[in-house]
Amino acid sequence: MQRRAAGAIAGSDALAATPEAPYYVVCFTSLRTSRDEGYGETAERMQTLAGAQSGYLGIESARGQDGLGITLSYWRTLDDVRAWKAVAEHREAQRRGREDWYRAYRTRVALVERQYGFEAPPERG
Amino acid sequence: MQRRAAGAIAGSDALAATPEAPYYVVCFTSLRTSRDEGYGETAERMQTLAGAQSGYLGIESARGQDGLGITLSYWRTLDDVRAWKAVAEHREAQRRGREDWYRAYRTRVALVERQYGFEAPPERG
Repeated sequence: MQRRAAGAIAGSDALAATPEAPYYVVCFTSLRTSRDEGYGETAERMQTLAGAQSGYLGIESARGQDGLGITLSYWRTLDDVRAWKAVAEHREAQRRGREDWYRAYRTRVALVERQYGFEAPPERG
Repeated sequence: MQRRAAGAIAGSDALAATPEAPYYVVCFTSLRTSRDEGYGETAERMQTLAGAQSGYLGIESARGQDGLGITLSYWRTLDDVRAWKAVAEHREAQRRGREDWYRAYRTRVALVERQYGFEAPPERG
């Protein structure tokens, strides 16, 4: 059992390897409609597009069987957050989201002040 | 289609009805082991216990089929965050998490600076 600063860890498949705080997180929580119509492709494209933006630090995303989804994207500065929100293709995806894909969502922009993490030993199943 | 401050909305089933910023969010992202051994019961108990703490504002949680889980808990102040982390029964659950339930996790404590949201009209399926 080990315990160390998350910033030093890059080994996990799906957890973002963010640097030392401070940096920003955008918490996007949503409830989906039953309509698909390109949702999966757009969600995937947005992850790729986000990863190409200045100040991008990582992303983590999960959607449970009850339909609640959470996506956390990490950014170096608040200006990076604003610039990503304003990217034209992202704005169009936001519009489609309100029009078709989401019953409700919340976006919360927050300054990460501290982080810590845990990695089990490699033999852990 | 409506757009308004998230703080004014309490109608969604599963999205937390947080107040106006500022407040705190604890972003807990994790990868599970294949072991259960009371995990579900403890997770449920921790949600109930968190809800009884001073400064608690809400919780949102999702785990995808790839095993990545995200839980966001919302708190009025940093002292409330610290007090929740130190609750004895919660500390024991954290210990069990490192011992049995998680391959890896990250905890990020962040100050929510702004929030906004969207609610579709009621007829949306």
